[in-house]
Amino acid sequence: MKQNKQLLLQNRPLGLPKKETWKLVETDIPQAKEGEILVQCEYVSLDPAMRGWINAGRSYIEPVQIDDVMRAGGVGKVIASNHSDFKVGDHVYGQTGIQQYIVTNGKGWHKVDPTLAPLPTYLGTLGMPGMTAYFGILEVGELKEGDAVLVSGAAGAVGSVVGQIAKINNCKVIGIAGGADKCKYLVDELGFDEAIDYKSDNVASKLKEYFPKGIDVYFDNVGGEILDLALSRLAMHARIVICGAISQYNNTTPIKGPSNYLSLLVNRATMRGMVVFDHAKDYGKASQQMALWMMQGRLKSKEDVYEGIENFYETFLRLFSGDKMGKLVLKVSED
Amino acid sequence: MKQNKQLLLQNRPLGLPKKETWKLVETDIPQAKEGEILVQCEYVSLDPAMRGWINAGRSYIEPVQIDDVMRAGGVGKVIASNHSDFKVGDHVYGQTGIQQYIVTNGKGWHKVDPTLAPLPTYLGTLGMPGMTAYFGILEVGELKEGDAVLVSGAAGAVGSVVGQIAKINNCKVIGIAGGADKCKYLVDELGFDEAIDYKSDNVASKLKEYFPKGIDVYFDNVGGEILDLALSRLAMHARIVICGAISQYNNTTPIKGPSNYLSLLVNRATMRGMVVFDHAKDYGKASQQMALWMMQGRLKSKEDVYEGIENFYETFLRLFSGDKMGKLVLKVSED
Repeated sequence: MKQNKQLLLQNRPLGLPKKETWKLVETDIPQAKEGEILVQCEYVSLDPAMRGWINAGRSYIEPVQIDDVMRAGGVGKVIASNHSDFKVGDHVYGQTGIQQYIVTNGKGWHKVDPTLAPLPTYLGTLGMPGMTAYFGILEVGELKEGDAVLVSGAAGAVGSVVGQIAKINNCKVIGIAGGADKCKYLVDELGFDEAIDYKSDNVASKLKEYFPKGIDVYFDNVGGEILDLALSRLAMHARIVICGAISQYNNTTPIKGPSNYLSLLVNRATMRGMVVFDHAKDYGKASQQMALWMMQGRLKSKEDVYEGIENFYETFLRLFSGDKMGKLVLKVSED
Repeated sequence: MKQNKQLLLQNRPLGLPKKETWKLVETDIPQAKEGEILVQCEYVSLDPAMRGWINAGRSYIEPVQIDDVMRAGGVGKVIASNHSDFKVGDHVYGQTGIQQYIVTNGKGWHKVDPTLAPLPTYLGTLGMPGMTAYFGILEVGELKEGDAVLVSGAAGAVGSVVGQIAKINNCKVIGIAGGADKCKYLVDELGFDEAIDYKSDNVASKLKEYFPKGIDVYFDNVGGEILDLALSRLAMHARIVICGAISQYNNTTPIKGPSNYLSLLVNRATMRGMVVFDHAKDYGKASQQMALWMMQGRLKSKEDVYEGIENFYETFLRLFSGDKMGKLVLKVSED
């Protein structure tokens, strides 16, 4: 009989997670009781934020507990339903976790339409990363037409959408990414004005060249040295959106704070943190707008899909090695 | 014949300025030409910001040049006038610099009334520090009734006014200062709810005790370790006003960036820099409000006045040793 493969958190890592941080187990496929549905999980989202979720201690969300299924958003198919809102065959998005089957009462889940966009897109541009980009740049970053915008992690799921939304709003957009392929992709495929390769370019001098009048909005996914360089190049009344700090997530030493933070004073600038969940009530409006832009060909979505729940760990590491392009997705079960 | 004693910048210091950073010279008292006034400078303002003005390089204001008179705001008396707006005997505020006499065309100068408040108060609560406090806490900090407010440098010219304005707005106010005398002064004289002595208290545990629900507004005059501790104790949607970083001004090593800045993300918080000059168009309104509070006895002003332009250096050092109470003022000439 078929079993449910589940990935459980085994211990809390110091620094970069190890293979032994998680373990794969097989359990019986659960049954949907009254008011519940059984979902076969098909695609799960791998995100930098997962690194934070397995730390102990207070953050914007409770940590994943030891022996719990690793938290993840995902899309799947309803294969049994005792719930009036969902029928067998519906495709749904929700907190699947890293596993092949889940039973849920449907709270916090919603249907997605695989005829409008491929399922992995609902984990990327039409999912949390897309929502993060949308609200991050437009609301937290207070984007204005004509702004000079810098995005780090620019070839990633969030950064690539941030940059494209800024271009749609007639801004000058420079992306920072690692490697010539990603930089070429940003400029040739996504329409960024310029790209900086942090692995080979002198970032400070490129920032000086591309931002002669300073940076109006910096959307920060990486923290560390690049945040410091961006701070040293701000325009008056600049806004910095703190969305993440992937360069610091696996630190075994204290996080590097931005030495140049007094540039906020000199430039009367603002640095503001964001968590996408705060904007949940407006997801619908944003998704419609994003889907429209995609249909118009103004917003491109790229997912990098790997296969097999057994390959979770190696795939997860790509988030930190940078060895991926666009939204990282793992396919965990077959139709 | 009487001479004009002037303090000139001699070189740019690394770290804490030395006595040789400046030199005192004597020159002829200048003459007021058509459209000008001759002002006898009486009181000059000593401020932490002066440390930044003698660094080379871009900041919110041009650096003081070598061999120029050291920049300072001050109040004095018009002793000769060829200007229709000013008459002999008027008291005026302006950029006097550290010297005993100055000729000016009056641009950027305004009259002050010594019968309403003592002259040094126009350098403190009714001057730039008071304006900084007023706009910093009310506008940049977006103070709301009932907020839990933390102020560092709380016994200083800016911090003491910030805390009192927050109390007037029915907030809970905790001040951080150095030494038992200052802490007692904050609570007993200025009405702060509590004071933390950073020289003897465990600041982290005091913050935990005094802010069980977190800090809504942190007004930062000091930077460094205390900024980091405040970041670790933020309430959701907290605001941090970056007004200064006196703990870092004399660093010979790079500035310590706030390691805990990702608390901005977790708490959807904002860190914003300010420079008081941006609010110049509203100084009049703010001064009236502050003067009214002073007359009502709700806002106390304290100036610490030292005498003699020859004693500039030793007096200036009190800004960094903390050996002063309230606004630091130097009397540079006699009536």
